[in-house]
Amino acid sequence: MLITLTTDFGDSEYVGAMKGVICSIAPDIEIVDITHGVRRHSVRHGAYALQAAVPHFPFAVHVAVVDPGVGTERRPLVIACEGAYLVGPDNGVLLPAARRLGLKQVRHVTSSALFRSQVSSTFHGRDVFAPVAAHLATGVKLADVGPELQVWTDLDWGRAEDAPEGLRGQVLCADRFGNVITNVGAESFSRRFPPNARLTITTGKVTFKARVARTYAEGLPGEAVALVGSGGYVEIAINRASAEQQFGLREAEPCVFRPA
Amino acid sequence: MLITLTTDFGDSEYVGAMKGVICSIAPDIEIVDITHGVRRHSVRHGAYALQAAVPHFPFAVHVAVVDPGVGTERRPLVIACEGAYLVGPDNGVLLPAARRLGLKQVRHVTSSALFRSQVSSTFHGRDVFAPVAAHLATGVKLADVGPELQVWTDLDWGRAEDAPEGLRGQVLCADRFGNVITNVGAESFSRRFPPNARLTITTGKVTFKARVARTYAEGLPGEAVALVGSGGYVEIAINRASAEQQFGLREAEPCVFRPA
Amino acid sequence: MLITLTTDFGDSEYVGAMKGVICSIAPDIEIVDITHGVRRHSVRHGAYALQAAVPHFPFAVHVAVVDPGVGTERRPLVIACEGAYLVGPDNGVLLPAARRLGLKQVRHVTSSALFRSQVSSTFHGRDVFAPVAAHLATGVKLADVGPELQVWTDLDWGRAEDAPEGLRGQVLCADRFGNVITNVGAESFSRRFPPNARLTITTGKVTFKARVARTYAEGLPGEAVALVGSGGYVEIAINRASAEQQFGLREAEPCVFRPA
Repeated sequence: MLITLTTDFGDSEYVGAMKGVICSIAPDIEIVDITHGVRRHSVRHGAYALQAAVPHFPFAVHVAVVDPGVGTERRPLVIACEGAYLVGPDNGVLLPAARRLGLKQVRHVTSSALFRSQVSSTFHGRDVFAPVAAHLATGVKLADVGPELQVWTDLDWGRAEDAPEGLRGQVLCADRFGNVITNVGAESFSRRFPPNARLTITTGKVTFKARVARTYAEGLPGEAVALVGSGGYVEIAINRASAEQQFGLREAEPCVFRPA
Repeated sequence: MLITLTTDFGDSEYVGAMKGVICSIAPDIEIVDITHGVRRHSVRHGAYALQAAVPHFPFAVHVAVVDPGVGTERRPLVIACEGAYLVGPDNGVLLPAARRLGLKQVRHVTSSALFRSQVSSTFHGRDVFAPVAAHLATGVKLADVGPELQVWTDLDWGRAEDAPEGLRGQVLCADRFGNVITNVGAESFSRRFPPNARLTITTGKVTFKARVARTYAEGLPGEAVALVGSGGYVEIAINRASAEQQFGLREAEPCVFRPA
Repeated sequence: MLITLTTDFGDSEYVGAMKGVICSIAPDIEIVDITHGVRRHSVRHGAYALQAAVPHFPFAVHVAVVDPGVGTERRPLVIACEGAYLVGPDNGVLLPAARRLGLKQVRHVTSSALFRSQVSSTFHGRDVFAPVAAHLATGVKLADVGPELQVWTDLDWGRAEDAPEGLRGQVLCADRFGNVITNVGAESFSRRFPPNARLTITTGKVTFKARVARTYAEGLPGEAVALVGSGGYVEIAINRASAEQQFGLREAEPCVFRPA
């Protein structure tokens, strides 16, 4: 059995402490890092990263901790999905992944017997989410974590709108290469813009020309390209350079793709 | 059996090489990264990270390599503790963790049969500490690593002083969120400052107002809060922003907490 | 059996997705990260990191993905070596490691049955290299990945030239500490410059004095030292500071070591 971790903790002992807790409860479980590089406090970025990675795993317990509200009223959740349990705070970070896998049941984790004996008010990754995941991985029943919920915090970055003047969407996040990932889906984009088509893209206050491409390497030096990325979303990229930096693109900013 | 790694190597092939050495000697051992994000050359930061994580692990061999004196006279050590062996250089990095776990015995690693066949003068993580840890994990006896020591390099960031004018301590380190961790312990702080109390904090040349809180999220935008963090030490934080950056807080700087 | 990963993906869900694919195909394989901190798009840096780490591993399948040409004509390769398979793009990133281990056979991976069912044009790490590595680790025969090649893209940073006026080489990369690693080998360096010798180093447009040392810690504050690093190459370093920053040293820049 696998437990995966997705956090905004960076490369820090916070991750080490979570792993220690898991190893203590579930010594034979394999722990796999999805990423700890989620932008600090960005629930949207965490949600994006989680939903991008989880479909590629066999059955696993996936823990996601992007949790600026740690210690407050926000509830700890376990979501049962097709082929996975998701464990994390009730702030939406789990929902895009849950929908993508197939959401079956959401439970409020209330059984404090599954927590670390002392629960701090600032580190539920270590004191709540890691031990709950370890217990689930070693056979604790879903029904024993706490009551089923009918209402929870959702997070949805929507789909692009296919408006007469262009495809209207928003920026989801940028990767390490400065490729800017939007919420515009492959289908609506490809229907509207053929390969090599010339585009005008507006994001925030910036408008620039781009070309539809299939690979990053097709871009000429400095040329912006728009392509369908590996997650099924349209990305804005510059070959061997950073579109994020060049155009100052920011998370959640609206973007519009128009014919040039 | 587990081997954990704590270094200031960042995400680099130095870590990969250490893991390769361990896998070669101890193919069935599980390797867990605590962190490789220790501030470069900061023995104090490494010591802090190690002691924060190790109490959460089951029995393990913990390797810590923050080692600006690599290749010089400084000795390689193994410290036997309650529930753990600690392996690393004799520069203090292991001591806070050893005390926290319960120090039983300190040994100078002299048995070169446990080293890589060629020992470089710049990378004892790979050539000394990783192989010694792997041998310990696979059953080499503590007594066979080398002679017991009575004297070693200590590192102690002390406790805050409960002075008439306020609690006097020092900055230990900052985390990825810019939360600044001090050496002021939970007890003396809570005895002196009730929940929601107003404080005046002085660190280095900066003095600012703060409020006692329980969670990061309680802070108003831009407001400094002081709270007991997950490691049992008082932290200075700003909700969704960096106290480290806002106040220019630096490792080892003195800090004083006074009533406002 | 082990699979290792070396990429320029940073700490991102791209790494998580690769691990998910591997776990799905080869649930009992151990995955070890060598590094994901390769400089973006730097095939040379990736090649350096890979060749530095792989000699320390027992038999393993090593995957290296530094792949600015992903989705273009460049071929996916498997290289059979002494004690390892190397898997990655045909851009040279595997070659220094292959030579160091002992190259036996190069194959063009054409058997799409070994790929993910849908292959994106931007993420062959997940869709081609990870699944091919997982299949090799679980027993797929080398001959079944595709035809043997006689010609492939090489990458060679050469050896320093022992010219009358000095040792002429080039900068390979810098590590997290700002130590600058050159392609000058230990032997030619030590033949020419005795311990403690005074040197004049020129790199790019900068010329500075340095001293031959054995350890980083020997350097006086601010003093440049040249020493044989743990990978067998000459490094330029400053004790507890960054030679890379102080001298503005850049990858692939020529460097010359002369007697002072």
